[in-house]
Amino acid sequence: MKNYTSINDIDNIGVWIKEAKMLKADPYIYKGLGTNKTIGLFFFNASLRTRLSTQKAAFNLGMNTMVMNVSGDAWGIEFGDGTIMNGTTAEHIKEAAAVVSQYCDIIAVRAFPTLSDKEKDESEYILKSFIQYATVPVVSMESATEHPLQGLADAITISEHSISKRPKVVLSWAPHVKSLPHAVANSFIQSMQKMDVEFIITHPKGYELNPKITKNTTVSYNQEEAFKDADFVYVKNWSSYSDYGKVLNTDSNWMVTKNKLGNAKFMHCLPVRRNLIVEDAVLDGENSLVIEQANNRTYAAQLVLKKLLENG
Amino acid sequence: MKNYTSINDIDNIGVWIKEAKMLKADPYIYKGLGTNKTIGLFFFNASLRTRLSTQKAAFNLGMNTMVMNVSGDAWGIEFGDGTIMNGTTAEHIKEAAAVVSQYCDIIAVRAFPTLSDKEKDESEYILKSFIQYATVPVVSMESATEHPLQGLADAITISEHSISKRPKVVLSWAPHVKSLPHAVANSFIQSMQKMDVEFIITHPKGYELNPKITKNTTVSYNQEEAFKDADFVYVKNWSSYSDYGKVLNTDSNWMVTKNKLGNAKFMHCLPVRRNLIVEDAVLDGENSLVIEQANNRTYAAQLVLKKLLENG
Amino acid sequence: MKNYTSINDIDNIGVWIKEAKMLKADPYIYKGLGTNKTIGLFFFNASLRTRLSTQKAAFNLGMNTMVMNVSGDAWGIEFGDGTIMNGTTAEHIKEAAAVVSQYCDIIAVRAFPTLSDKEKDESEYILKSFIQYATVPVVSMESATEHPLQGLADAITISEHSISKRPKVVLSWAPHVKSLPHAVANSFIQSMQKMDVEFIITHPKGYELNPKITKNTTVSYNQEEAFKDADFVYVKNWSSYSDYGKVLNTDSNWMVTKNKLGNAKFMHCLPVRRNLIVEDAVLDGENSLVIEQANNRTYAAQLVLKKLLENG
Repeated sequence: MKNYTSINDIDNIGVWIKEAKMLKADPYIYKGLGTNKTIGLFFFNASLRTRLSTQKAAFNLGMNTMVMNVSGDAWGIEFGDGTIMNGTTAEHIKEAAAVVSQYCDIIAVRAFPTLSDKEKDESEYILKSFIQYATVPVVSMESATEHPLQGLADAITISEHSISKRPKVVLSWAPHVKSLPHAVANSFIQSMQKMDVEFIITHPKGYELNPKITKNTTVSYNQEEAFKDADFVYVKNWSSYSDYGKVLNTDSNWMVTKNKLGNAKFMHCLPVRRNLIVEDAVLDGENSLVIEQANNRTYAAQLVLKKLLENG
Repeated sequence: MKNYTSINDIDNIGVWIKEAKMLKADPYIYKGLGTNKTIGLFFFNASLRTRLSTQKAAFNLGMNTMVMNVSGDAWGIEFGDGTIMNGTTAEHIKEAAAVVSQYCDIIAVRAFPTLSDKEKDESEYILKSFIQYATVPVVSMESATEHPLQGLADAITISEHSISKRPKVVLSWAPHVKSLPHAVANSFIQSMQKMDVEFIITHPKGYELNPKITKNTTVSYNQEEAFKDADFVYVKNWSSYSDYGKVLNTDSNWMVTKNKLGNAKFMHCLPVRRNLIVEDAVLDGENSLVIEQANNRTYAAQLVLKKLLENG
Repeated sequence: MKNYTSINDIDNIGVWIKEAKMLKADPYIYKGLGTNKTIGLFFFNASLRTRLSTQKAAFNLGMNTMVMNVSGDAWGIEFGDGTIMNGTTAEHIKEAAAVVSQYCDIIAVRAFPTLSDKEKDESEYILKSFIQYATVPVVSMESATEHPLQGLADAITISEHSISKRPKVVLSWAPHVKSLPHAVANSFIQSMQKMDVEFIITHPKGYELNPKITKNTTVSYNQEEAFKDADFVYVKNWSSYSDYGKVLNTDSNWMVTKNKLGNAKFMHCLPVRRNLIVEDAVLDGENSLVIEQANNRTYAAQLVLKKLLENG
């Protein structure tokens, strides 16, 4: 593994989950691995969990950390090839990525989609440019279409809380007032497709995700039916994929309630809008795993950094 | 002590001052205490001294540090109970505090008052919510109504510079153009009430502080009289408490001058507006303790962090 | 050396370059030197390379780092003497620098010029005030008129890539759409004046730099002639010095091309605007040293910090 930008970079998710659990049990065992190693965290967008858990993972490995909000701390980065740079961008990614590679042993990048230009978003030009021009490993802290550290943390969490051999896992759309990315849903789907689970997606018509991601996963437009006998219900809003980036409806009937959930464990990547995505009673109840999911972000990141440091 | 959010959390100020002086004399003696421990510094408001001295204190104890400007680096946090979150806030403090507790061994928070809604400010809802939902100790880096790291640093400074057995200490209001919080004054008052000093507050009529804080401390409307034979004059502006948050006057007669001060030591928490709060001659003169007060912020913070780490 | 704010602070550039190369060969050899030492990086302006390479240099020496965007993280700093501070600035540099000196063993500052007030810029009031009121060493991370960490990194780079005994080095102006500082050009000139090189400056009429800096260095208005038989061509835009801060022209004939460059090595401090300052073919070609220059920023900074720590 040269970079970690997708759930597809995981060769054997069962082995990875096992390793992550070992790190969680004994977080400082590889502290020597990061001696004299530095990770640079570059944010094109806001972050709370990812910012802190990735730093914490680096600390656990004994690494130095440098954090930058790219636009706020520096200036606009140009990604276009052959551009005459007489506009607002001041530095080309060709230089930026190559230069930063000399100060960092690992580069971590967060860059959200536009949600207005599908082709541009799907090109993953920011992440791909970093990979192309960096000379050190690149880790995605959520790109336009994937959030693989979240997807890995989710897999760890499901593994920890499974009581049946082959649990039923549901990914459900829920309403939101803003246009949100598909990245978390995509990475969760890819993650579940690698695990031995019964997996089903449920959402209103029009919210079909990228078929290249969903593949042959069952999709139901009937949330109630989908939730039946579920062991885990993963809830997330996303904007329309076909009518790209649009909020087609904010139907509160799709909000997840304690009643709907039954005995299933509740999962969400956070941040979550209470009483819009899910009612208080779920988040404040015993079946919520959201805090544990966030906890596992540290060990997902730590496992990825460990693997990249060991390769280096 | 589970959290440090008030001078009232100090059980014996004499013992604390003694311990702080020991840390100041030998700052790295407890460096092993912070190994594999992380402090998260969360700023809802601007900070210079607090930001740097608290980090420095953590370094002295061997801790890792993570610093966030909450709104700039992440997003708006919701504090209301039961809110339907379809507005501008993206994450509830219930999740935020619980999640962050998993990445940090100590959470430090700065959150200023509105100075427009007295009840809201006095509820200390931001700090209280962190305490309620965090699972690790919380340190106030200045809340709506108190600034206990400053108050402790001030007590240390007075102890260091006392030549008489029971010094006379004056807290004086001084003019300012903006509406300022009561937190520094409140914590200084609480701090002096715990020490063996002759303590008097002086301010123009209308600037009476919260009587639950001032209690039976003598208040004089005559600055000149109050300053007589003072050993320490602590100067600070605050907005009206009764006519909440209002700037009633900016009477430059209340500005502190070298002449008024006489032989008394001058104290201020900084930042201080020169020639508005106090004239240059005082700050540039030998009787100013303001730089030493700021220095003691490190050891006040270090003592608090040390105590919390030892409890943990 | 008490502070490092100018190429003039280098006593023997040959010895410094040799030492920097030793650090580059073995970056962690002095890691004990920074134990319990903290550097504070204070940015009045945006930064990418300087921010990261100076932190990296500090890590290599085992130092703790604290980074602040002064205006964003804290508040406006007052530099005027005797000012009645009833305006927008909240803290005087007298206090700020003295206070920060207590939390930091070295203070590093970046503060760009106004490019509208020549006298103010040339007074270097921000940097000079830090030096005046700080009680620890001050390092310039680019001031109004000089960028000495860049100038040192450039000297190291030229030394590494010289094949002739006395290489010909050209500093060439190139067009830009915005008004840019003279600092990089000034420090490069001072650096070359200390080295055993054949040095010539070329720019359009009206772009003459400060004669106190250029001294008796040859200046040509003919870029083609200047480039003849050059070993190194250092390219940089700057605004007019005589017609202070003005962009007199953006003549694309002065853009540097592969054809113009011939066999000369290409240098630029970065960020560089592609196809405005220099065409893609140069930056993407084998003769570009820009990435290596940026790499040497780490060792230039590390050498400076090492010297200051050894003095302390």
